[in-house]
Amino acid sequence: MALIVAKFGGTSVADVERIEVVANKIVREAKLGHKVVVVVSAMSGVTNRLVDYCKQINPFYDMREYDVVVSSGEQVTAGLLAIALQKRGITASSWLGWQISVHTNDVHGKARITGIDTNEVHKRLDDGEIVVVPGFQGMTQSGRITTLGRGGSDTSAVALAAALGADRCDIYTDVDGVYTTDPRIVPNARKLKKISFEEMMELASLGAKVLQTRSVEIAMKKEVSLQVLSSFEEYIGSDLPGTLVTKEDNIVEDELVSGIAYKRDEAKITLLSVPDIPGVAATIFQPLAQAAINVDMIVQNISPDGKTTDITFTIAKADVPKAVKTLSDVSDLEGVDIDINENVAKISVVGIGMISHHGVASTMFKTLAEKNINIQVISTSEIKISVLIEEDYTELAVRSLHTAYGLEEE
Amino acid sequence: MALIVAKFGGTSVADVERIEVVANKIVREAKLGHKVVVVVSAMSGVTNRLVDYCKQINPFYDMREYDVVVSSGEQVTAGLLAIALQKRGITASSWLGWQISVHTNDVHGKARITGIDTNEVHKRLDDGEIVVVPGFQGMTQSGRITTLGRGGSDTSAVALAAALGADRCDIYTDVDGVYTTDPRIVPNARKLKKISFEEMMELASLGAKVLQTRSVEIAMKKEVSLQVLSSFEEYIGSDLPGTLVTKEDNIVEDELVSGIAYKRDEAKITLLSVPDIPGVAATIFQPLAQAAINVDMIVQNISPDGKTTDITFTIAKADVPKAVKTLSDVSDLEGVDIDINENVAKISVVGIGMISHHGVASTMFKTLAEKNINIQVISTSEIKISVLIEEDYTELAVRSLHTAYGLEEE
Repeated sequence: MALIVAKFGGTSVADVERIEVVANKIVREAKLGHKVVVVVSAMSGVTNRLVDYCKQINPFYDMREYDVVVSSGEQVTAGLLAIALQKRGITASSWLGWQISVHTNDVHGKARITGIDTNEVHKRLDDGEIVVVPGFQGMTQSGRITTLGRGGSDTSAVALAAALGADRCDIYTDVDGVYTTDPRIVPNARKLKKISFEEMMELASLGAKVLQTRSVEIAMKKEVSLQVLSSFEEYIGSDLPGTLVTKEDNIVEDELVSGIAYKRDEAKITLLSVPDIPGVAATIFQPLAQAAINVDMIVQNISPDGKTTDITFTIAKADVPKAVKTLSDVSDLEGVDIDINENVAKISVVGIGMISHHGVASTMFKTLAEKNINIQVISTSEIKISVLIEEDYTELAVRSLHTAYGLEEE
Repeated sequence: MALIVAKFGGTSVADVERIEVVANKIVREAKLGHKVVVVVSAMSGVTNRLVDYCKQINPFYDMREYDVVVSSGEQVTAGLLAIALQKRGITASSWLGWQISVHTNDVHGKARITGIDTNEVHKRLDDGEIVVVPGFQGMTQSGRITTLGRGGSDTSAVALAAALGADRCDIYTDVDGVYTTDPRIVPNARKLKKISFEEMMELASLGAKVLQTRSVEIAMKKEVSLQVLSSFEEYIGSDLPGTLVTKEDNIVEDELVSGIAYKRDEAKITLLSVPDIPGVAATIFQPLAQAAINVDMIVQNISPDGKTTDITFTIAKADVPKAVKTLSDVSDLEGVDIDINENVAKISVVGIGMISHHGVASTMFKTLAEKNINIQVISTSEIKISVLIEEDYTELAVRSLHTAYGLEEE
């Protein structure tokens, strides 16, 4: 008998019929004798609609009220799944973020879980109940609702699995595992049986929409192995043929490159002719950090005269209005032109094998050059290389790189 | 400077544009120097959609989980209105039922408010904030979410007004006041300037959809005068030309009959050949009460042989499946046939003047007889007479009675 946390994403609970399918999957686990905590997302489309409402009223909406609005989606699914489980003769109840409680810091809209009270959940599980928890939501110390950022339900699931000491954390989604790249772009992309936390974290943060970055980060830290599974397939017995995201030690043969990721939701911001004085980077990036805007790639070009410099960085497209407003309010940047380019994509090559092998970067640059794709910004880590290119070339770049690294299905 | 509780129903917050209009109305009150607590319903259609989800999964859904699902609608509106108010330069925040807290009993789906903590709200108001509260929702002593029954946001508003000691409780809706009958059926129905709590309570419980019965009951008990207003009209200055629902003392001239109400959402249930023994009524109605099913009209026909009896009663159509299930489980009723007729309407004549005038009932019976409308069940109180008729005759009955009592616009 194992304790399982099972998480179902938006497409897995898209409508009443899909919720019934999810209930059947949970019943299957319960019949195998397992204790189950289910974490659910909002029905697909719901969160987008709620975010749109906020934006329509005020593009600079208050994140505290945004959290009140958008957290409602997961609440609905949790109640509905509990009803569906009860219909199948199972004792089940929903427990909202503030009821459990899932404690977070007060960075509304992108809050981080600081702790989870598991007493009530353990008690329910011991009584033979299935516990349904809405993902994505938590509560500040002062009792306000928070949300964990888009894809936050993954993080809820992993954090719950860690806090409960769960044996497994199953992430059910609309794909049946983690692929070498997006199969919609490269039809013969290969499903990975196993992938290390480190690689998954890079892939996740780089746009492979299977798992939220933060969830992988917590899984790695707390050593919670994740199984990525399709909620659209039927599994028989205890066989779960998805992708296991686990410690590197558990992976016998590292591949040189595990996957190619792409991301279209970043924008490139360039501040032109910024005075090139010490502390100028802090002048720019400190206010952005305070406004909870994540900056990704950063490049600084020193000008020939040494007096001014152009600074380029990337942020989420969704943060552009807030970033522009924030930077306009910085008195030291008065008169500095802000150039915004939303027509960019980030392409990344990820592989834990890179640490000990050379030539991965040069293969990437050569491949893109052969296709006449211009590289605008480069950023690297021990296990990935990312480049920013013109968005129109996204598919071409991904396909060419996938072939160049020999990642196709055998 | 007054303390005002203003409640906006579903059609008043139907979409983002309507929410902006509501924000403007609140700003107007704030600019007049008033402290304002706003109570909001779910955007129109949302609650119905959420109820449908529950029903689709299981017609006998768990009311505790139903409450988790349907309470989310008001939460969304509250957050959105706070954002709209903030855009207008007003400090505003939303406070959910469990945050305030609005305490209720644990009759899920039809909970009653048992108390409201007003400290936090008073503190916010004193700080110059507008407080936005989702209607319809509360919390049990054990920390589970409850809802107050359809139209429950009216009750939330009145209970808040009473608890806060508000000077006014304005109920904004999609009509501009209380009419002598439904203007969609009788175009020359007259708007009432004032109406007593007692009459409004009868009209409300009889199907005039302007106010929830329970809200009028609390308003009467706590002497909170209600102003029914249209959210679709612009009011200038402090002039609020809706209908005032108030104590009888405040109404100088009572009318013999104030209004004609109708209700199509009841079903007639007949139990055939029930053994005519003492306690049989308790056998039937106690389980229904325990299942939180409200029974309205009751008629018992003693059979000629004195051994069996037919018992007829009406309940909400929505409660029919639950009622049938509940009665089927009563062992003493084994073998008793249950006849269900959903093709009925209840028509009522209401007027505080009835107490001292005769002839109101006979006018009603004569009028219906002249139109060949058969009366199935009759029930009376001091200030109203109700009859159950075939649903097809609803409009004809309402129109004929409206004329018979001379209620037209002069």
